[in-house]
Amino acid sequence: MRTLLLTVAYDGTDYAGFQIQLNGNTIQAEIEKALFRLTGSEIRITGSGRTDAGVHAAGQAISFDTDSRHQPATFVKALNAMLPRDIVVLNAEEAPPGFNARFCAIGKTYVYRIWTDPIRPVFERRYVTDLGQTLDIVAMQQALSALIGTHDFAAFCAAGSSAKTTVRTMRRAIVEQKEKIVEISLEADGFLYNMVRIIIGTLIEIGTGKLPSNCLETALKSLDRSKAGPTAPPQGLCLQEVFFLRQDGQLVLRK
Amino acid sequence: MRTLLLTVAYDGTDYAGFQIQLNGNTIQAEIEKALFRLTGSEIRITGSGRTDAGVHAAGQAISFDTDSRHQPATFVKALNAMLPRDIVVLNAEEAPPGFNARFCAIGKTYVYRIWTDPIRPVFERRYVTDLGQTLDIVAMQQALSALIGTHDFAAFCAAGSSAKTTVRTMRRAIVEQKEKIVEISLEADGFLYNMVRIIIGTLIEIGTGKLPSNCLETALKSLDRSKAGPTAPPQGLCLQEVFFLRQDGQLVLRK
Repeated sequence: MRTLLLTVAYDGTDYAGFQIQLNGNTIQAEIEKALFRLTGSEIRITGSGRTDAGVHAAGQAISFDTDSRHQPATFVKALNAMLPRDIVVLNAEEAPPGFNARFCAIGKTYVYRIWTDPIRPVFERRYVTDLGQTLDIVAMQQALSALIGTHDFAAFCAAGSSAKTTVRTMRRAIVEQKEKIVEISLEADGFLYNMVRIIIGTLIEIGTGKLPSNCLETALKSLDRSKAGPTAPPQGLCLQEVFFLRQDGQLVLRK
Repeated sequence: MRTLLLTVAYDGTDYAGFQIQLNGNTIQAEIEKALFRLTGSEIRITGSGRTDAGVHAAGQAISFDTDSRHQPATFVKALNAMLPRDIVVLNAEEAPPGFNARFCAIGKTYVYRIWTDPIRPVFERRYVTDLGQTLDIVAMQQALSALIGTHDFAAFCAAGSSAKTTVRTMRRAIVEQKEKIVEISLEADGFLYNMVRIIIGTLIEIGTGKLPSNCLETALKSLDRSKAGPTAPPQGLCLQEVFFLRQDGQLVLRK
């Protein structure tokens, strides 16, 4: 047995999310199906982040154990020949035994894209949330700065989360206007269930002037979900990158 | 009666082309259907370029006559509420009587995008031609320079064209590497049927080293379609912009 780590990108528009379920196509099911065709074995994969229905990934990390002897490059090529056009394997590499893409991740970056032009998007339509109005990005950036550092993010956690602790460390939070799109990048050691989408939902209310720019800080301190704004829609969200510990370029276990 | 000019963008992936036909959805049919719902009249539109099946537009120009009294801004808003998500009206403006988006155009820019990375595209997959290998853009740019100016482009015209003359003036021809995409922009006073796709098909053979960089010039001088390369696939092609004469910002007739 060996452990492999795949880096995968997908357009989540036509999927019911990453995680396998009884009804609806999932990213996990498509990849496990392709792995079965390639190796002849039923392989159970672990994704670093279980993205919701409609959420995209530019750099999802996926680990699995296999007794297949194919080279990593063969996994990339063969899986890409079998996977649907909206899922692609960008990279495959050997990982140490016991490596797990979910539990070994030391950080992640999510990007959220908001369309701010009154004319709706065409080419970008699958990858943005269409707000159709301009945003005050200075107020949004100011509000976000309150989240930097280690905090209890309970106010930004949807009900039903199984997280042991709601404390997370936000390392970076950037708002940028890129032509007609406002792009928000959040990097943290981990994210609670719906944390990005609740932060963004609150931030949109700030950017449109419906809420004052200090309300993100107020919500954070309250530890109360009802003090934060609504959950932003999934289609603007993209799991951009997952970080792991490496030594001499090789993956190493954290735990 | 008055004449209006619309600027329209569309993702051509799921259409059988611009021009209305018996079988298959077309851009023209969708827009005429929406105009009928808005005005209650059957309106026949004219597109500046009749893009093929799978070809996109970022700035297609469309003219039509109507006795509707709606403001141009109302056309934009109402049509966008009715059109499918992959077609959008960017602008509407009054045009002089007799204005015709096809015959009054004094120039057009087409952009062709080629994916050069060995890993296939995900987010860009509808808007690029997936070549999967790098291109020699210096050789391509050198080859293209032979097309600048006024020439008989008969070698780059597909059979079945009804053009009176095959002489056209190429004003600008640029090749750029933009990360994993090679983007080729061609601006001319007009384009023959399949002219861009035959030029690009030849250019790809040059960029991959299958043909020498002088073969675009050789083909041009031969006036012989069989001396040029294959017709490049439609999905990388986009009608970027259409140019008209204006005085004081108002559209004027050329003929």
